[in-house]
Amino acid sequence: MQSAPSIQKLLDEFERLPGVGPKSAQRMVYYVLNTDRASAMRLAEAISEVKDTVRFCERCFNYAEADLCEICASPKRDRSVICVVSEPRDIPPIERTAVFDGVYHVLGGELAPMEGIGPDELRIAELMKRLASSDVSEVVLATNPNIEGETTAAYLARLIKPLDVKVTRPASGLPVGGDLEFADEVTLGRAFEGRVSL
Amino acid sequence: MQSAPSIQKLLDEFERLPGVGPKSAQRMVYYVLNTDRASAMRLAEAISEVKDTVRFCERCFNYAEADLCEICASPKRDRSVICVVSEPRDIPPIERTAVFDGVYHVLGGELAPMEGIGPDELRIAELMKRLASSDVSEVVLATNPNIEGETTAAYLARLIKPLDVKVTRPASGLPVGGDLEFADEVTLGRAFEGRVSL
Repeated sequence: MQSAPSIQKLLDEFERLPGVGPKSAQRMVYYVLNTDRASAMRLAEAISEVKDTVRFCERCFNYAEADLCEICASPKRDRSVICVVSEPRDIPPIERTAVFDGVYHVLGGELAPMEGIGPDELRIAELMKRLASSDVSEVVLATNPNIEGETTAAYLARLIKPLDVKVTRPASGLPVGGDLEFADEVTLGRAFEGRVSL
Repeated sequence: MQSAPSIQKLLDEFERLPGVGPKSAQRMVYYVLNTDRASAMRLAEAISEVKDTVRFCERCFNYAEADLCEICASPKRDRSVICVVSEPRDIPPIERTAVFDGVYHVLGGELAPMEGIGPDELRIAELMKRLASSDVSEVVLATNPNIEGETTAAYLARLIKPLDVKVTRPASGLPVGGDLEFADEVTLGRAFEGRVSL
């Protein structure tokens, strides 16, 4: 693409988006060029609106448009169960399962000592404060099922257990709909260790 | 994704872009949420700037930021050779070859009688006016090498030839770097018909 500097600029900006290469950026630019002004401006305004209105929930550090996120503000949620996740992006998939009706706490990452991410870099102090000030019966440690996530969960479990709060972690096992044949041995091992009676 | 309406809105807008599904839209939304305000606003502003500044070149109907596009405005281009293309998006690939130093004419589509696109729906009258009013020695018909493009080229050739203007069309043949084995028979047939002596 050449000729128009404003077109080149938009092309560069689209290319900065994750997963967008030169070809897709070009297709997006042509979409913007060919669509009516109102549609294009809806995209531009949605971007600036997100940056203007979205902040972190004061209680759980999920994305929010008010002091509290919609989950923390909802009277329907069970405040006595807190699910701890690494990032706000981990919340929507859990919400979609519709099996969890507690509230969340977003750590803002996972322990990774090699990268300089220790307990002070995560919102652990804030979690402990929540546990001290409210009546919590269970903490579900839903950090990722990888080394950093497991380390973080183990660290938090040690910290929370003395408070006489039940600490759980989502089960590891075979993905539903998957083939046993193709399961990696660690997952399969976990699935056997955690076998349940029928 | 749920909880914040402004996040849902941006998700919907990203999903409208060509080639963007729910997963990529989500990744783009997280990019906007996590990036600094200035970067996000650069994208929003690039979109509105394109809609504010880009229009069609008065002469060739390429995208332009002034009355004339940069190609028509350039003193270095040979005004006696006009390359006819279907859409503005066909110009950048031709420019990248760096073998064409003439000017362009964008038809705004190709003849497709079944879809109600006849000569009056394309910028053919405008092309004929250019040919009548300036000294043009050659018209290169670079419409697409498919049925609509060939039909359009044949139609234009019949219209232009009586004006005593050379009418050409880019060669059909084997793509450079391709395998002869995998060439379709039409392309291979064209390549043989158009064989050149070495």
